[in-house]
Amino acid sequence: MRLSELFAKTKRASPKDEESKNAQLLERAGFIQKLSAGVYTFLPLGLRVLNKIENIVREEMNKAGGVEILMPALHPKEIWEATGRWQSFGALFKTESAFGGQYALGPTHEEVLYSLLRNHISSYRDLPVCVYQIQTKFRDEKRAKAGLLRGKEFRMKDFYSFHADDQDRDKYYEAMKKVYLAVFQKLELNAIPTAAGGGTFSELSMEFQVPCESGEDVVYLCKKCNEAVNKELAGSAPSKCRSCGGGADEIKTIEVGNIFPLKEKFAKDFNLSFKDKNGNARLVSAGCYGLGTSRAMGAIAEVMNDEKGLRWPGSVAPFKAHLIELDAGASKIYKELVAKGTEVLYDDRAGSAAGEKFADADLIGIPLRIVVSKKTIAKNSVEVKRRYDVQTELIKIPDIYSYISKNL
Amino acid sequence: MRLSELFAKTKRASPKDEESKNAQLLERAGFIQKLSAGVYTFLPLGLRVLNKIENIVREEMNKAGGVEILMPALHPKEIWEATGRWQSFGALFKTESAFGGQYALGPTHEEVLYSLLRNHISSYRDLPVCVYQIQTKFRDEKRAKAGLLRGKEFRMKDFYSFHADDQDRDKYYEAMKKVYLAVFQKLELNAIPTAAGGGTFSELSMEFQVPCESGEDVVYLCKKCNEAVNKELAGSAPSKCRSCGGGADEIKTIEVGNIFPLKEKFAKDFNLSFKDKNGNARLVSAGCYGLGTSRAMGAIAEVMNDEKGLRWPGSVAPFKAHLIELDAGASKIYKELVAKGTEVLYDDRAGSAAGEKFADADLIGIPLRIVVSKKTIAKNSVEVKRRYDVQTELIKIPDIYSYISKNL
Repeated sequence: MRLSELFAKTKRASPKDEESKNAQLLERAGFIQKLSAGVYTFLPLGLRVLNKIENIVREEMNKAGGVEILMPALHPKEIWEATGRWQSFGALFKTESAFGGQYALGPTHEEVLYSLLRNHISSYRDLPVCVYQIQTKFRDEKRAKAGLLRGKEFRMKDFYSFHADDQDRDKYYEAMKKVYLAVFQKLELNAIPTAAGGGTFSELSMEFQVPCESGEDVVYLCKKCNEAVNKELAGSAPSKCRSCGGGADEIKTIEVGNIFPLKEKFAKDFNLSFKDKNGNARLVSAGCYGLGTSRAMGAIAEVMNDEKGLRWPGSVAPFKAHLIELDAGASKIYKELVAKGTEVLYDDRAGSAAGEKFADADLIGIPLRIVVSKKTIAKNSVEVKRRYDVQTELIKIPDIYSYISKNL
Repeated sequence: MRLSELFAKTKRASPKDEESKNAQLLERAGFIQKLSAGVYTFLPLGLRVLNKIENIVREEMNKAGGVEILMPALHPKEIWEATGRWQSFGALFKTESAFGGQYALGPTHEEVLYSLLRNHISSYRDLPVCVYQIQTKFRDEKRAKAGLLRGKEFRMKDFYSFHADDQDRDKYYEAMKKVYLAVFQKLELNAIPTAAGGGTFSELSMEFQVPCESGEDVVYLCKKCNEAVNKELAGSAPSKCRSCGGGADEIKTIEVGNIFPLKEKFAKDFNLSFKDKNGNARLVSAGCYGLGTSRAMGAIAEVMNDEKGLRWPGSVAPFKAHLIELDAGASKIYKELVAKGTEVLYDDRAGSAAGEKFADADLIGIPLRIVVSKKTIAKNSVEVKRRYDVQTELIKIPDIYSYISKNL
């Protein structure tokens, strides 16, 4: 894509109304724009990153046997009353129709999915059912000051599994931990599986926590065996490690995912039951598996940056290469790379100075910078530099594509 | 995909609470499920169709030079007051935060986009800007009884173009008509460009209307020159054709898209201006281009069906082929087709009778049915039948893939 086609411009200064690093950087670099507290537009570069994250998540969820659906955001009051959460769920946005009927704006989808599945589960032969969606969610957050880390409107993958008994559910739950670690590895997020309380859902759960100084969570991480426990579960004083008795570090973290054993909780509310092999009616045992995709984007921005700007991992970068034209000659290279399927952002702006182009490349944070200048063209070459390196390298023009293929 | 993996089951009878043919068929066939009036879940088969429609739309919008973004659904009251539509937009869902602030749930996004672009447009050199999104929208519809044709929550592509003057905008508007016709051709929808009033937006606009007995719109279509005018614009008595003076037929239709010249309307409200070549400040001139993607899915279901069920065009069918196993032998064929990249729905259900499998194939409406039975296996063949044909044909097993490639 040509930078001249991108209407969203970079800004030299951080927006004054943002406190968090992820929002400051993502807004300056033209990835997102704030509409109001906790509510953002994804601009062209930002939507590309979000789509890449969501496609990585989707691929792993499909591998785990999940079937994708899309549930609505308007949830009739009646199903939220069935679980008691119309009153008890603190952060629920509500709306009503002028023609009758009240709705919750979905912050999570147990109510919708359990209602739905009553039409599709009747026998043990129908189980397990593994279903997920990637969708916009709403929560009336009090402190929506952390950019993409805490939104009133945000993107999320929510996965639900339904089983004939607890053993089958436990087995799936264990497998899902590995699936989550595979996702975060692809996102290059160091997510630590952390024991946690279940909030409204269940006694125990597992969170995936990324160490980060500006994180809002606190985790006790054992120095010896690496077992991690959320401070909320461990209590205020870090006890000795539950596994090995070793001492624990107190670290700040960002929660990027969580998995809950729901067991029979909501099945009771909706009487979601099936006939087992002996013909007896039983409630389904469920697990739920959440992953905030826009929050993951915020976490990556919050963790991977330097004083010059963002530093995207190759797997989610909006483009693989950032081609800068200082003099003529880049257009041909751009066309050839695009023809070969390379994702290139091409800074073709005629009126901009070299310094501005370099600063924007660092700010936007694409993994590989390619510069075409009179000097490089004289040597039939381009100058390449990785975002996290200081050294540059001259590469012959016919070798660019193979260099990119090898290095990205 | 194996039908046994699809948790969503077909139903023999139409749901009692649905009046429209599209909802009856899509719910019976397991594509969607109603949560409340005008609010639907897209089940696995339905989401596949919706994604295919949206990818066709996305591809054409990109070709037209559009850059994709994603705007929020929560719109602060203040920007809707700036246009006066907080009061005047009849079907607006509203919500509020417990911590202060009221929001509209976005039914359209002029307010958000004009606010946003003030940060990015300052000079004539920044224009034109062409931007779109594909997103979930909300409208508090009074009569939400037409399935996917009139939802309280629905999917829509909205495209906006911003220009330095009316001539440039007119030129783009004309080009967009052709883009729309290309989209509807790919969707196999016979969409007639129809002159219409602009509602809240502008004096004149163009709608794309699909003839359909159950449609809610009425269009006068000239028998001689095919010019079409919406009854609302033409007045109650069909005047003679404005172009050729011929007589007009009155036909019922479904509106699947509309394009509006917004001109300077919202630019005034938000003072979205730029410096022209002479350094004078001018308001941008805009057009907007809507296409309901979930409504298009409903329109296809409403128009393309017979007494046995749905009949999807190949471009948006959830799968290209529906493989039915009556006796053993289909599994190997399934794996080979999948390995070659063919999208196949494989009815591998062990406990289902042949009649049930045939009825489900007709109901689901995938373009090509492939049956494997003892009789066909004895001839090293499968039996193929197109959804809109009655004749069947025997195809040798090694020739299936090339048959599918040629016929789909």
